[in-house]
Amino acid sequence: MGNPTGAMLVIGDEILSGRTRDSNLYYLAQELTRVGIDLREARVVGDTHAEIVAAVRAFSASHDHVFTSGGIGPTHDDITADAVAEAMGAAIGVRADAAALLQAHYDRQGQEFNAARQRMARIPDGAVLIDNPVSIAPGFSIGNVHVMAGVPKIFEAMLASVLPTLTGGAPLLSQTLRVLRGEGEIAAEFGRLAAEYPDLSMGSYPFNLNGAHGTNLVIRGTDPAMISQAMVQLNRLFG
Amino acid sequence: MGNPTGAMLVIGDEILSGRTRDSNLYYLAQELTRVGIDLREARVVGDTHAEIVAAVRAFSASHDHVFTSGGIGPTHDDITADAVAEAMGAAIGVRADAAALLQAHYDRQGQEFNAARQRMARIPDGAVLIDNPVSIAPGFSIGNVHVMAGVPKIFEAMLASVLPTLTGGAPLLSQTLRVLRGEGEIAAEFGRLAAEYPDLSMGSYPFNLNGAHGTNLVIRGTDPAMISQAMVQLNRLFG
Repeated sequence: MGNPTGAMLVIGDEILSGRTRDSNLYYLAQELTRVGIDLREARVVGDTHAEIVAAVRAFSASHDHVFTSGGIGPTHDDITADAVAEAMGAAIGVRADAAALLQAHYDRQGQEFNAARQRMARIPDGAVLIDNPVSIAPGFSIGNVHVMAGVPKIFEAMLASVLPTLTGGAPLLSQTLRVLRGEGEIAAEFGRLAAEYPDLSMGSYPFNLNGAHGTNLVIRGTDPAMISQAMVQLNRLFG
Repeated sequence: MGNPTGAMLVIGDEILSGRTRDSNLYYLAQELTRVGIDLREARVVGDTHAEIVAAVRAFSASHDHVFTSGGIGPTHDDITADAVAEAMGAAIGVRADAAALLQAHYDRQGQEFNAARQRMARIPDGAVLIDNPVSIAPGFSIGNVHVMAGVPKIFEAMLASVLPTLTGGAPLLSQTLRVLRGEGEIAAEFGRLAAEYPDLSMGSYPFNLNGAHGTNLVIRGTDPAMISQAMVQLNRLFG
């Protein structure tokens, strides 16, 4: 469809151990759909340097925009910034602009800007800081990689700063027809309709709710007139 | 830690477009932790043949167990079985055992076992069927790849059939200490403790709940005595 593409890397042992249910992928997917960036794939890796480096390299080479969540706090398992720096071939150290933000924050709170907290000012050379209105410690963008926090409120606030700086495309639109028939009954005709519209994406999602059994038929695309035309045909078939 | 490793592949445009929030990864992560299989990575791809093939090949070669969800229904966008067959170098067609299950099911319901529904009996040669007590259409295991439905209730039921057939390891255990201090205050000492225990994984997760601000310190591992010993030290430091 000609839209820019995106990929997401979710970083953290807590997701793979089942301690935490990630919500950032779902949030990002909806926001990218809204601004017209096609999210094409996502990966979840643990707090492992080599795996973060490999995933960032692969995504940065094959997509227009890469979004990461997690691993930018002050503790020993927060290794995202260093891994992204290595993946992007940048040097990294405590950067003055990030340190100044954090120093001022801890001064206001009467707390010490200690060595652990200085870790959060480790920013790759050449990166642009991403504002963190929730807890100050910034994310950063380097090349086409946008590095954000894992805590959902902070991830969402950082994404709100980043998205307006990106060139999106046509928003991905969708319309849904809910039918009280099983997928197996509508599959043949629905498949033929999908084949008629190679520029649209059509999917079917069965539901079973309070005894009602049926299928949601979803048509997605960027051209509202084409979607409407396909919906007319869909309604004629199953409406 | 010597446990077998696992990887998960979530398949479906509806996850990447933000229509659906995946819950199967979270469920699988908890179940694998319980049976002692280390979930090492996960990927989400759309309904795209080449991407499913590539991900299954990569995972099958590098992990002991691979779990997929999604794309095994009767509609044109259900392409998982064919992609997995290609990835594993197996032929695929409508298989008599799967067809018999489905034929009997639709006979009972007085519905036609039509061409679309026969699609759900496409099973790679050499695969073992996975029972589907919810809606009959089976999943399958081929080599170390376990192919299951995307609908959470069916995914969970299929996983319950598959897990007892796999060789797990020592369950991954965890203990948590909740402290009312920020991550930046505890990071240095927590990091030193983590370095003392290379066989344990230690993570810190900040929270902010009803005005209470603090950090959950989590120690994970397979040796309960070692975890307890580390928890004693953790309590001494921060309890």
